[in-house]
Amino acid sequence: MAKLLHGKEVADALTLRLADRASALRAKGVTPTLALIRLGDDPSDLGYENGIRKRAEKIGVSVRGFYLPESAEKEAVLSAIDALNADASVHGVLLFRPLPKHLKADENEITARLDPKKDVDGMTPLSKSDVFSGRSSLGFPPCTPAACMELLDFYGIDCAGKNAVVIGRSKLVGKPAAMLLLDRDATVTVCHTKTADLAEICRGADLIVTAARTLRLLREDFVRSGQTVIDVSTVWDETKPNGKGGKGAFAGDVDFAAVEPIVGAITPVPGGVGAVTTAVLMKHVIEAAERGGCHA
Amino acid sequence: MAKLLHGKEVADALTLRLADRASALRAKGVTPTLALIRLGDDPSDLGYENGIRKRAEKIGVSVRGFYLPESAEKEAVLSAIDALNADASVHGVLLFRPLPKHLKADENEITARLDPKKDVDGMTPLSKSDVFSGRSSLGFPPCTPAACMELLDFYGIDCAGKNAVVIGRSKLVGKPAAMLLLDRDATVTVCHTKTADLAEICRGADLIVTAARTLRLLREDFVRSGQTVIDVSTVWDETKPNGKGGKGAFAGDVDFAAVEPIVGAITPVPGGVGAVTTAVLMKHVIEAAERGGCHA
Repeated sequence: MAKLLHGKEVADALTLRLADRASALRAKGVTPTLALIRLGDDPSDLGYENGIRKRAEKIGVSVRGFYLPESAEKEAVLSAIDALNADASVHGVLLFRPLPKHLKADENEITARLDPKKDVDGMTPLSKSDVFSGRSSLGFPPCTPAACMELLDFYGIDCAGKNAVVIGRSKLVGKPAAMLLLDRDATVTVCHTKTADLAEICRGADLIVTAARTLRLLREDFVRSGQTVIDVSTVWDETKPNGKGGKGAFAGDVDFAAVEPIVGAITPVPGGVGAVTTAVLMKHVIEAAERGGCHA
Repeated sequence: MAKLLHGKEVADALTLRLADRASALRAKGVTPTLALIRLGDDPSDLGYENGIRKRAEKIGVSVRGFYLPESAEKEAVLSAIDALNADASVHGVLLFRPLPKHLKADENEITARLDPKKDVDGMTPLSKSDVFSGRSSLGFPPCTPAACMELLDFYGIDCAGKNAVVIGRSKLVGKPAAMLLLDRDATVTVCHTKTADLAEICRGADLIVTAARTLRLLREDFVRSGQTVIDVSTVWDETKPNGKGGKGAFAGDVDFAAVEPIVGAITPVPGGVGAVTTAVLMKHVIEAAERGGCHA
């Protein structure tokens, strides 16, 4: 019977602390403000935006939405970013990604356009360079891997000298999670689709962070007692009971029923990392607002 | 008896190919040109510069030295960089590092000042972000980890699906080496001073890249048959026979006499990675010159 690492507990605790910091900013006449740039109406973007708005309201962060059609041209997106870069009342900017397919080739140019001071989801080259170099002078790490670290911190799980396995090598989750774990003195192994014996490597780990977006990837033969498992993925599982007598629900990479009885601690999906991500986004907005105009 | 991976063979082959490309550039009226910025007269900088100048002469790359006193202020270094950024006849700029201690706090500002197009040793944020993101649109990786990849390529050592262990997490060698190995589909474990059982982790690897700068770190109990060992470190060893009846010579992290009889392939030190690094630097200068003014 594993300890369940509930994202809601982490997010609630963080929300309380952030609300105090937001109040302190408001007392100085600063309203911490996040701008969202969304192209089209992708359901997962809408769901994330809904979560962001609820979390922001609890904390006292103002959210402004800038909505473009899914067919928007590159120039329109760049103009929106330029306007928000120039607007001193906006402290953080979140651009929903992935961008529509016709902008895929322009993604580097678009993400590089944002002022790194306002890059609260770690998408600019400077933010990436900071995560890679192990410093956070100006940029922020992407919110999802940062949420994994918040979760580990909240539950007092020390990574120093531990063997951590990260499954997935994306620039949004896997690679930055690996860098953040290295900063915490973990010995980090990055696995992916070409990894030869994933089960054996996972069994050797103290901590597994999985972000493969593959249902039932981690089964009982991947784990052993005492391990901590952080499941970052959220995938629709047509076979999972929905709690109302029917089937179809979100699940992660872990075969939860098989793995949970074996390991020491595990995040549920949903209710794990995802629940912390919006709180981490707010933390970045508030930090950006606190830094104010002091940083060049 | 391991196969010796001689850096000189790799560098010689690369030099031949690069000399052809340099000739082609000269035929178009372009002299591939590297500028060096050196502060003070640190012996290891002087040794590296000597190697660079010899390699450049063989290939047909022009080298210009810009020498500042060790006590130079930040503004003087920035001015030198600005002038080289503006000089269209200079294709690559190498700033010798580490910088003198009084500039340590300014290192980020100084390295960020260089035009990423001319950043032939991967020190700017954009270059780092590119290495981290697994693309090389504009920037170059640092020369030392890139030299490790040249060496693997030359000897036909395929990394895909193999377990690679990188010892060291510096932003100059360990971390970029890990990223370049991930690009080649290796499963990569990054180890460091806080790693709990380095010997066991190394024994499980197919490929070990070590950059710890610690004499005799890897002994016979760290390795097994069939492994490839790339030793990046060059450290002065007072006890190593110098070949002239006395003692004192350069060595790497590997206890060569103990490890070489066991593993499948290994780089000597000296004569391994270090010998390839200047050739890789030239490759980056020539690529920068070939790109010419086409890249914004």
